[in-house]
Amino acid sequence: MSDGRHIVGVDLGGTTVNVGVVPFDGGPVLGMRSVPTEADKGPKFVVDRIVNLIRDAMRDAQKEAGIAEDAFVGIGLGSPGPLDRRTGTVIDTPNLGWRNFPLRDLISNAVGLEAELDNDANAATLGEWWQGAGQGVSTLVGVTLGTGIGGGIVLDGKVFHGISDVAGEVGHMTIDSTGRRCKCGNYGCLEAYASGPAIAARAVEGLQSGEPSLLPSMVRGELARITAETVYEAIVAGDDYAKEVMRDTAKFLGTGIANLINILNPGMVVISGGVTRAGDRLLEPLKAEVRRRAFSHASENCQIVTSSLGSMVGVIGAACMFRQERFGDL
Amino acid sequence: MSDGRHIVGVDLGGTTVNVGVVPFDGGPVLGMRSVPTEADKGPKFVVDRIVNLIRDAMRDAQKEAGIAEDAFVGIGLGSPGPLDRRTGTVIDTPNLGWRNFPLRDLISNAVGLEAELDNDANAATLGEWWQGAGQGVSTLVGVTLGTGIGGGIVLDGKVFHGISDVAGEVGHMTIDSTGRRCKCGNYGCLEAYASGPAIAARAVEGLQSGEPSLLPSMVRGELARITAETVYEAIVAGDDYAKEVMRDTAKFLGTGIANLINILNPGMVVISGGVTRAGDRLLEPLKAEVRRRAFSHASENCQIVTSSLGSMVGVIGAACMFRQERFGDL
Repeated sequence: MSDGRHIVGVDLGGTTVNVGVVPFDGGPVLGMRSVPTEADKGPKFVVDRIVNLIRDAMRDAQKEAGIAEDAFVGIGLGSPGPLDRRTGTVIDTPNLGWRNFPLRDLISNAVGLEAELDNDANAATLGEWWQGAGQGVSTLVGVTLGTGIGGGIVLDGKVFHGISDVAGEVGHMTIDSTGRRCKCGNYGCLEAYASGPAIAARAVEGLQSGEPSLLPSMVRGELARITAETVYEAIVAGDDYAKEVMRDTAKFLGTGIANLINILNPGMVVISGGVTRAGDRLLEPLKAEVRRRAFSHASENCQIVTSSLGSMVGVIGAACMFRQERFGDL
Repeated sequence: MSDGRHIVGVDLGGTTVNVGVVPFDGGPVLGMRSVPTEADKGPKFVVDRIVNLIRDAMRDAQKEAGIAEDAFVGIGLGSPGPLDRRTGTVIDTPNLGWRNFPLRDLISNAVGLEAELDNDANAATLGEWWQGAGQGVSTLVGVTLGTGIGGGIVLDGKVFHGISDVAGEVGHMTIDSTGRRCKCGNYGCLEAYASGPAIAARAVEGLQSGEPSLLPSMVRGELARITAETVYEAIVAGDDYAKEVMRDTAKFLGTGIANLINILNPGMVVISGGVTRAGDRLLEPLKAEVRRRAFSHASENCQIVTSSLGSMVGVIGAACMFRQERFGDL
């Protein structure tokens, strides 16, 4: 299937950088590596780290698969936004602390390969479409759950960017106009209910008002140490209160996803991120909320699934994005 | 500019049917007429009415502009949805009381011209793009405010339908998940706050809790007779409470439109419907709410305007839709 050409995919996140080498026509990722971003050490540190990871991944891929040195056609970069794809600049990324940062050209020049930049959630959604859960679905929406909530929209097999590369910012959709305060300054954003930190914050609030739970003992009484991960572990341990926190999370997500379904009428919504480990405990109440809130003629035609590519998805999607930008639609 | 060909545009609403003849390349609408739908008299009555209106409009257009009888290339029909464009069937329209109704073929066969069916709000948005406020804007969203709230999405000069013709149903976007009950059975839909009946209902609730206002005297104490129109008249008469009701309406609409801007990143949002007569009293607080809630990089690139085509827009848009379906993109 492959003609020997390969693309480097880079998935830059606030916490982790993933890098791998992706065959031009798809297939197993080579030389995959995943390291902490350590954004607090400054942009130069992060760029150097990415450049080294790319070189290491290319070297490993050459060893693993005997790829010729000139078979690397370029680099696809997925980064938190907002960003300007045309200039390859990250405009403003609170999680990294960067402003107007020319990420694409710095990486491209250092490695000596052409590069393209897009939003990380756009890349992840494209990855699901190309090689993951969304194969064969022309129109899908990806929702990435983490420190923030991102989104990507793929229409007819292409990322939909809107007119200034902002389309798909689903985390700051209002679902409760007078509701919880969001980090962005507004009230009632989806992210203020269902991001990792928001799940933890809601859990702590309930504990402070006296809900019985295993959670306090799991963090030796230091409630500030509770994370979405702790809530998940409490569910595994059978904690009823943690299950209730997850059901509420599912309802909030279901409300946001119902909005996306009413507006975009996609064939699939792919959810990714650590919280999806909760499986049906998340998905079943989420789907029930969607059925309540979305037009039946839309929700009946929309599969809601979790990512099938895991931590690979951003790398695969970034490579796909580079391919589409430089070699045309797939 | 025109080559003599013309398209009949039909805008079927729950209250009014508008019919007119539209030159193939745009320009003034001929033979325009607007009559009550009287949906309570049943679907046969409504179909006969539309067929007669089409014949009358064609006859008038021939007289007015000397159009040849064979210059009518077809009929574009805009109807409340959900509907199936492929079969030309209205699936379920509570405002008309129709289910699985083959509107397109009934009209087409009776008149003896080819016809195409699409959602009324889609047609209106396409009309703004073709001949109205949205000329030259490739990606725009239309929001129609009336008995319900509809929406249409035009991407790169084409209506975006989603995978089952439901895309753009913005009225049932949740903006307050535990909020006002909507006619659809859910809680917190945009339509439950900012449709005509919802504006009236919110106004009445405030009056019942003792807000001083001119409104009760305008309906001789029969608060049930208050409509969005009455609220508008009270604003014109200088009533502070009615102004407050409008400011709240603007905030709710601004919240919903901010969601659309974060998700779709369009170049324009066009608002239409009777409530837009309030002008800047609606638009200014609406835009302020959008600036608060949408990504600045998206809201700064999005004009928010009112329709420039008034009651013609649905007719013009339906004709444009027929042209695009049968003769390709403009």
